Amino acid sequence: MASNPLVSDRNVDFLLKEVFDLSSLLQLPHFEDHSEETCALYVDACRKVAKERLFPAYPEMDREAPSLEQDGTVRLHPQARALHEALVELGVIAATRPAEVGGSQVPVMVTVAAHSYLMAANLGVYAMEGLTTGAARLLESFGDEALQRLFMDKMYAGQWSGTMALTEPQAGSSLSDVKATATETADGTYRVRGTKVFISGGAQDVTENIVHLTLARIEGAPAGIKGVSLFAIPALRPDGEGLVPNDVTCSGVFHKVGWRSLPSVQLSFGEQDDCRAWLVGAPHQGIKMMFQMMNEARLMVGLNATATASVAFFESIQYAKDRPQGRPLGVRDPASPQVPLTEHADVRRMLLRQKAIVEGGFALITKAAQLTDLSEHHADEEKRKQAFLVLDLLTPIAKSFPAEYGFEANTLAIQIHGGYGYTAEYLPEAWWRDQKLNTIHEGTTGIQSMDLLGRKVMAEGGAAFQLLLVAIQETLDKAAAAELPEGMRHSLGQSIQQIAQLTMELGAKGLAGDAEGMLRHSYDYLDLMSVVIIGWMWLEQAAVAEAQSRCTRGSEDFYRGKRLACDYWFATEMVRVPALIERIRSGKASYADLNPN
Amino acid sequence: MASNPLVSDRNVDFLLKEVFDLSSLLQLPHFEDHSEETCALYVDACRKVAKERLFPAYPEMDREAPSLEQDGTVRLHPQARALHEALVELGVIAATRPAEVGGSQVPVMVTVAAHSYLMAANLGVYAMEGLTTGAARLLESFGDEALQRLFMDKMYAGQWSGTMALTEPQAGSSLSDVKATATETADGTYRVRGTKVFISGGAQDVTENIVHLTLARIEGAPAGIKGVSLFAIPALRPDGEGLVPNDVTCSGVFHKVGWRSLPSVQLSFGEQDDCRAWLVGAPHQGIKMMFQMMNEARLMVGLNATATASVAFFESIQYAKDRPQGRPLGVRDPASPQVPLTEHADVRRMLLRQKAIVEGGFALITKAAQLTDLSEHHADEEKRKQAFLVLDLLTPIAKSFPAEYGFEANTLAIQIHGGYGYTAEYLPEAWWRDQKLNTIHEGTTGIQSMDLLGRKVMAEGGAAFQLLLVAIQETLDKAAAAELPEGMRHSLGQSIQQIAQLTMELGAKGLAGDAEGMLRHSYDYLDLMSVVIIGWMWLEQAAVAEAQSRCTRGSEDFYRGKRLACDYWFATEMVRVPALIERIRSGKASYADLNPN
Repeated sequence: MASNPLVSDRNVDFLLKEVFDLSSLLQLPHFEDHSEETCALYVDACRKVAKERLFPAYPEMDREAPSLEQDGTVRLHPQARALHEALVELGVIAATRPAEVGGSQVPVMVTVAAHSYLMAANLGVYAMEGLTTGAARLLESFGDEALQRLFMDKMYAGQWSGTMALTEPQAGSSLSDVKATATETADGTYRVRGTKVFISGGAQDVTENIVHLTLARIEGAPAGIKGVSLFAIPALRPDGEGLVPNDVTCSGVFHKVGWRSLPSVQLSFGEQDDCRAWLVGAPHQGIKMMFQMMNEARLMVGLNATATASVAFFESIQYAKDRPQGRPLGVRDPASPQVPLTEHADVRRMLLRQKAIVEGGFALITKAAQLTDLSEHHADEEKRKQAFLVLDLLTPIAKSFPAEYGFEANTLAIQIHGGYGYTAEYLPEAWWRDQKLNTIHEGTTGIQSMDLLGRKVMAEGGAAFQLLLVAIQETLDKAAAAELPEGMRHSLGQSIQQIAQLTMELGAKGLAGDAEGMLRHSYDYLDLMSVVIIGWMWLEQAAVAEAQSRCTRGSEDFYRGKRLACDYWFATEMVRVPALIERIRSGKASYADLNPN
Repeated sequence: MASNPLVSDRNVDFLLKEVFDLSSLLQLPHFEDHSEETCALYVDACRKVAKERLFPAYPEMDREAPSLEQDGTVRLHPQARALHEALVELGVIAATRPAEVGGSQVPVMVTVAAHSYLMAANLGVYAMEGLTTGAARLLESFGDEALQRLFMDKMYAGQWSGTMALTEPQAGSSLSDVKATATETADGTYRVRGTKVFISGGAQDVTENIVHLTLARIEGAPAGIKGVSLFAIPALRPDGEGLVPNDVTCSGVFHKVGWRSLPSVQLSFGEQDDCRAWLVGAPHQGIKMMFQMMNEARLMVGLNATATASVAFFESIQYAKDRPQGRPLGVRDPASPQVPLTEHADVRRMLLRQKAIVEGGFALITKAAQLTDLSEHHADEEKRKQAFLVLDLLTPIAKSFPAEYGFEANTLAIQIHGGYGYTAEYLPEAWWRDQKLNTIHEGTTGIQSMDLLGRKVMAEGGAAFQLLLVAIQETLDKAAAAELPEGMRHSLGQSIQQIAQLTMELGAKGLAGDAEGMLRHSYDYLDLMSVVIIGWMWLEQAAVAEAQSRCTRGSEDFYRGKRLACDYWFATEMVRVPALIERIRSGKASYADLNPN
């Protein structure tokens, strides 16, 4: 049996070079030390570590989850340290960061490709590094020089790890209800007391220290979201030349369904009233700072989800090719050999649906990554702003589409494996468990939907939506030039126009003070946008494939696959648009009316 | 926190008494010993055991799955024996069977209600009894007197258990490729050799013996499906006054994702060439006999699935009511108390969707059970036949709808529980794992779809479909009398007429020799039928609720809930019908065309 490729190498090239034009991006001064070759080297290096180191360790690390030991420590799998070191050596933590802070200035678009292999290979192992990047970035953006030297440098170097400590038991998604308290002390640091739950990587024995980027309220702060501040709280605090315990204790490990190699823990801060915390940025600005980091974190979740669907997709293909099962319809001779599962129409349907979701997801995340790079590094301020607006609008979709539809793809991978798929002897069930978290963490799908409809599409008087219309029109023109069927082009063009109209109507409702009415069908609105945005991504890919297939040789099957998956998306998903629009417009109150008994 | 009701008692009464008219069914002579009161007593007794015995044991039995021990035995959870005895005492194994074989002649429709509590409480524990019923029924229908005395009596009495041993490692769903061999011996029994996989309850230490109803080929039998015979193979065979080992060994236990209290094992028959088997019925008729039992087995899977979605639905409601989280839109005062999750529109959406799936599923299975009773016990032969035809047509839908949509409902239960839902500390993830099997065993969804389109809707020149049209028209008349909106009635009436037309077109394709073209979109056809049949069930329920609410007091909320869920189904699912019909009619070949690379 062939080994799982994790992610399609050919598709990575297609997205980076043929669709999203990496070479143009590399013209920006920020990337002057990079070329397509150096980028390819980074992707190759990550791919190699993913396949040779992370993937072989995955099954055992999934089975043997860490637990809280008597002495209060949480010991990771014996392989965790070596894998962490391999990722540090690859430079994943600071790959996109500026050289000044020890980074490599690799475009985010390239790290999306490169890191997708690591995620597909072993999500929990990669995630610890991803969390460190996120925590260190908060310090890079908002910490002063002293804080950066004290914590950030060691985090980017992989010597210490980082976490995000937001959630509290009584508050969940409602960050305005954070209760942890911080009291200023004479030396300018704070003493923090409080309990945080679901802290991924909140306790481990792989790095020498862990820095928790933590939300808490300074004594006397205003109630609600405007009184929450951000602190850096190390597990061990610097004391003279060494490190001493900082009164942060792990009071429990959650038994998670997936991501099992990375412990999710409950942390108690300041049980002995001796937990020192360093304020990051200005007081009471914690949520605002967190929000500025959230786009990237949400794109990472979208990429996790896509990568997790990808590895299961390839496992399905391989299994379906290798497994003889039954005979074609109409062949009644029982002496004829069985045919592979791939010969059955319904198995091909499941594979095609997985492909449409996986490659649709990768296209959207790559697009979002390109916009991230442009929003940060384009020379023209107006262009930076435009890229940011579109990115901001697409983010809830890029987070939720792969999480929701990717889960469906992972479920199909089990189905294709039949009875075997329902056993721990095969891998699809493990990825399926991993995947389920992605609709929950970093903002549930419901929260993403309110972010999209309540904020993002309305941003700056609809400026982001207008820019989206322009970008989609470019794809429609490209599709016309490639002579793709009028029906598909019309479907996309009409759908997005109708959504524009619908969005204005919903916005008017909101302005008239009926926020409930405006947002009642926010989930459906997110689903509608997901279907259409992925339709856009498929039309873009099909248009490029059509044009390329006329001038490139040797990829006929690949380009034909793009066209078939595009056809599939329009035939099965884009056709849902009218009914979705009608339902959202109706504002039907049945959701809200039901007495849930 | 209130305890989980498992299944809605009020809904059970509604379906049995108000919708499906149990009292009429009880007029049939076969049920003369029963009354609504005796039926209610049986439901009550099952409900009590489910709540007080099975449900409390579930979490631990899910955690501590049996494994294969050194000595070749598989030891179930310590509580398994007592729970088995409780179910035997309830009389669940032979509840529907005739008094002659030790049964109680309870209508299947009543056992569907009663056993749904047991399944919701602890699927694996109930399943062992359900499998025994199925195996014993094969002997009741096809075994001779001697076989019935030898095996069946002890199975119905709960002294021995039964299994279905069909699947082999190389064959999976393709039963024509069964390879186990049987050689006749001088005393009329057979010696069997072969390996079977995924045998649920194939090894356990709770009953004193296990009888495996096994498919194997008699030496010299024709190849393929027409050479497969059915055998009864006991783990221990009668020898004089006692039992001796029958050369059936458990060679492995699968690590299943769910149903963990019930081991699924690999069995080796005749490794020492000393495995005696008793032929059931005539040689080479094994598949035919199995198929006659399959409807009931598939309805049981549909009921498993609905019950598993039900228990998670009630857990969601309770959690959503108890968990304060965030504030209503527009309330900005952070000092105001948090409101329960039920106050958020998106949570209500998820609850309503669960309700629509769970109660839609229960209605369909109850309808199918009513048809089962009528098909077996109606005095008029023509009525029996008609009931059977409709039952036969509905069976793949009654199996697949709860499995596929029920899984979605179980996934929503996790989502409502947020981060906690993703941990083993809460139950939704366990039910979600249990549920996943239902799209795979007893014929995958893909196989159900080919059964529906390739066989059932075409049966007897479309006679079954015609009867379905008549039954749906009765609901439409009732809905008109109850003054339900014309839009919903029109939607159902038009949809089923269009499906009738589509079905004729597909049938014509098949008759013209294009079986592949006919069946290419069989999955979509099954989905289409599922949506419309459940739409039928919802319109029927809403019509009854509307009529009842005018004359009954005290259930206003209940009846209103029925109406809202019906509205929801038509607004979200029935609107998918036109696009589904168009896709199926198009016969678009993209599924079949893709080279899965």
